[in-house]
Amino acid sequence: MSEVYAPPVQRLITELGKLPGIGNRTAQRLAFHILRVSDEDAGALAEAIREVKQRIGLCEVCFNLADGPRCRICQDERRDAGLICVVEEPGDVIPIERTHEFRGRYHVLGGAMSPIDGIDPEDLKIAELLTRVGEDVDPPVREVVLATNPTTTGEATALYIADALRERTPEIAVTRLASGLPVGADLEYADEVTLGKALVGRRAV
Amino acid sequence: MSEVYAPPVQRLITELGKLPGIGNRTAQRLAFHILRVSDEDAGALAEAIREVKQRIGLCEVCFNLADGPRCRICQDERRDAGLICVVEEPGDVIPIERTHEFRGRYHVLGGAMSPIDGIDPEDLKIAELLTRVGEDVDPPVREVVLATNPTTTGEATALYIADALRERTPEIAVTRLASGLPVGADLEYADEVTLGKALVGRRAV
Repeated sequence: MSEVYAPPVQRLITELGKLPGIGNRTAQRLAFHILRVSDEDAGALAEAIREVKQRIGLCEVCFNLADGPRCRICQDERRDAGLICVVEEPGDVIPIERTHEFRGRYHVLGGAMSPIDGIDPEDLKIAELLTRVGEDVDPPVREVVLATNPTTTGEATALYIADALRERTPEIAVTRLASGLPVGADLEYADEVTLGKALVGRRAV
Repeated sequence: MSEVYAPPVQRLITELGKLPGIGNRTAQRLAFHILRVSDEDAGALAEAIREVKQRIGLCEVCFNLADGPRCRICQDERRDAGLICVVEEPGDVIPIERTHEFRGRYHVLGGAMSPIDGIDPEDLKIAELLTRVGEDVDPPVREVVLATNPTTTGEATALYIADALRERTPEIAVTRLASGLPVGADLEYADEVTLGKALVGRRAV
């Protein structure tokens, strides 16, 4: 049926369909929406895409997104440089910032180790983390919080980094985000792995 | 938390979030995806948006999408000009074409009448339909199929157009898409309105 769509419409549907979670039907719906809105609104979206690719790169220190050589957090002198939180993706920085519980800096790995997908430690910013942690800076790094996802690949990555850090910089504390019940959860509906972790990690009150 | 995102990233999330069915979380996910892909892939999407707005307009005859003054269907001399299918949106043409059951032409209203949303008959291409149907052309129009959606607004629009056509061009047949059970449906799970329509519209076998 591609004959029905004029080539520019088909091209837009194809490009929209490459976005994650956007199937062909949704791509069609979005394309028709874009056809309906004003030229200004559609232009703003196209321009935002171009601008983000032109102006946003990775921070040279932590590999978070940055609109210059260093990201806003690495530029912020009030953030504790002795405390580094290791996350998989730039998008993981946001939920941690939202907690207002962390005033250190970040290190973005760019993913998690996954042999099945061909992602090895060398494909992530792990060597850069080890170098950064080992540098003779003031204040020195005193703790690395491993905040990779509580998934198989995230856990494997955390274990790998923890081993490497303990070997090279044994004086630095290495911690992992607590696993347990989400706040507001119902015990009855908790999966047994989470509940098991909550039991193992129980704390005095 | 807007401070965490550099302005170009925030701008992209905002623009993506304006698309229908794309909430803030999904917009973030899409934005991070766009940040991750190659400049070429992101550029192709931006360019597709610009191109579709620059090159696609409405057909001067039927108001379907067109990359010139007339759409492909109106340009196709093999399509029966005596049979016109009236639909709400350009996107409705595609599913009808997919059936391979219709070889006539289309007329795209640009929506359905909805007083609650302030959409009156004058906001749709209804006057243009009446003019088109009444024109002294060869072949003359002999049937108008009302294929607006089987919804309150779609039904109201179909009734309004049917009345107007019967008054001005009583010699032209006006038909409506059949309502009934979808093929493959299970009677047990059919809603009573659909099942009722299927009963009323029962046919000899």
